Amino acid sequence: MSSNKTAEKRQYENIMDKLVSRIDEMNSPIVAGIDTTLEMIPEAKRISMFEQFGSTPATAADLLLSYNKTIIDSISDLVPAVKPQIAMYEKYGLDGIRAYLETIEYARSKGLIVIGDIKRGDIASTAEAYASHLSGVEIEGNTFDTWQEDMVTVNPYFGIDGINPFTKACKETGKGIFVLVKTSNPGSGELQDLLLIKGCPVYMTIAMLAESWGADMIGAQGFSSVGIVVGATHPETGRQLRDEFPKLFFLVPGYGAQGATAEDLRGFFNSDGRGCLINSSRGIIAAWQKDRRFDAGNVGEAAREAVLKMKAALQ
Amino acid sequence: MSSNKTAEKRQYENIMDKLVSRIDEMNSPIVAGIDTTLEMIPEAKRISMFEQFGSTPATAADLLLSYNKTIIDSISDLVPAVKPQIAMYEKYGLDGIRAYLETIEYARSKGLIVIGDIKRGDIASTAEAYASHLSGVEIEGNTFDTWQEDMVTVNPYFGIDGINPFTKACKETGKGIFVLVKTSNPGSGELQDLLLIKGCPVYMTIAMLAESWGADMIGAQGFSSVGIVVGATHPETGRQLRDEFPKLFFLVPGYGAQGATAEDLRGFFNSDGRGCLINSSRGIIAAWQKDRRFDAGNVGEAAREAVLKMKAALQ
Repeated sequence: MSSNKTAEKRQYENIMDKLVSRIDEMNSPIVAGIDTTLEMIPEAKRISMFEQFGSTPATAADLLLSYNKTIIDSISDLVPAVKPQIAMYEKYGLDGIRAYLETIEYARSKGLIVIGDIKRGDIASTAEAYASHLSGVEIEGNTFDTWQEDMVTVNPYFGIDGINPFTKACKETGKGIFVLVKTSNPGSGELQDLLLIKGCPVYMTIAMLAESWGADMIGAQGFSSVGIVVGATHPETGRQLRDEFPKLFFLVPGYGAQGATAEDLRGFFNSDGRGCLINSSRGIIAAWQKDRRFDAGNVGEAAREAVLKMKAALQ
Repeated sequence: MSSNKTAEKRQYENIMDKLVSRIDEMNSPIVAGIDTTLEMIPEAKRISMFEQFGSTPATAADLLLSYNKTIIDSISDLVPAVKPQIAMYEKYGLDGIRAYLETIEYARSKGLIVIGDIKRGDIASTAEAYASHLSGVEIEGNTFDTWQEDMVTVNPYFGIDGINPFTKACKETGKGIFVLVKTSNPGSGELQDLLLIKGCPVYMTIAMLAESWGADMIGAQGFSSVGIVVGATHPETGRQLRDEFPKLFFLVPGYGAQGATAEDLRGFFNSDGRGCLINSSRGIIAAWQKDRRFDAGNVGEAAREAVLKMKAALQ
């Protein structure tokens, strides 16, 4: 009886709790988007690797991985999380996927929380297979963590039965998902802003659904294991969603290279200065190309300085 | 001048032309969904492989691949296309992706059109990376066809800028995409059926967008390189979309295991009996488990009979 009572009292703990406490410790609500492209890699290195190992997807993947390690080494004490974008690796086929997986493994070894930006979504039986990104896969009674992400982004187009397998995985593992609500791209309105007869736009309905999908997974810090993606390029929408959904943690792309500024983000945070994780990809990982003070020898230093600058801007 | 005129007269040719002519030749508007799971694989084979090579994702992937080859061998003269569902392979991590790629390679070697059921979608720069599923990837001036699919399924949640890179790839390669419009799952209505203030549901708007996205890629057979996904489980919607969008080819999941019958599909075809490709996955590839006349020794025969039965039902 008394042990039951203890269990009842103990708050549910989820990855958002870990995320919030890491953000607080580091004073850094920043996630570095590891969306590496060949164009970011210093030319001399690229040429030498291609000459030595051949101009193949395998060499390209090795170049991305090695660049990612430099970036991760230089910022792992400044950000709580990284968000590799799987598309940038998937592009190179099997070798690219290997680089994606090894990037994740490396980031975890440095203590970083890993958000897999995979934006998967499908009907129930298929979504169940995709949910293995969180739950791993069971073979003959043993579970293999085939992807090793702590959280993933998810596309809501299929509705609840496409989401259930992910929320089930969240419940079982304490991991989390971010549901696409209002994305950062200019064309996002074409579907997401369509006005419904019930008086709100599509994205608002998705946010309401996301709230309901995660209602029974509120962590000790007050945030649901089901968060949402809200683009920094829509300041008013961010403010409105923050007001309406205090328990939804926001993953916020669109800062920097896509045009949004720290000022635009004011309304995304709650009154405690919590509730979101701001992503910057090119702004951090390709910083060496954007500042004359840096060159190919300062990839890591430039990334580090970009994070510090972003931290200061977000204060 | 005269060669210009010839060029003007010559109709645009796309993968839908090839698909239509293969369907006509074979009298078979059927695509086999290669959504293989370990549970479909005969137990004795599974046990022996796991004992011999270890109960690992690599062995699981080999089992899937070998099963797929049996299925493909038994039906490649009866269907124009196969549609492997990448999630079923992605589940097993890197080894699974290898099995997916080798399944595609094998299907192509048997002359089959391959539809990669990947349902990818993202903002422009990322969608461009995903579009490499169709266009391949360029490294130092050479193009590598890293995925080898002829067509892929695409998620429209991001709007036009998430679709542009795919349509660009279609234009450059003659390949095609199927945009998710009305999916086969029971929860599909949660987002897709939401009624818009302009008087139509979300899925209808997406169909209109899909029509516009492919308007300049109409093939010789009258179908756009941009097709749509319409679930067989929504007969009335199928009929309505067929009437409104004569140039959109339909990829139709939901037949068989998900509950839709041949009767439900009547309205999906145009008056020439053309315009769609009906998918069956478990109904074909796991047929041996569903009919007492078959056992583990008849995986291929059962699949073949299931296709023939489906062909007859669709006449």
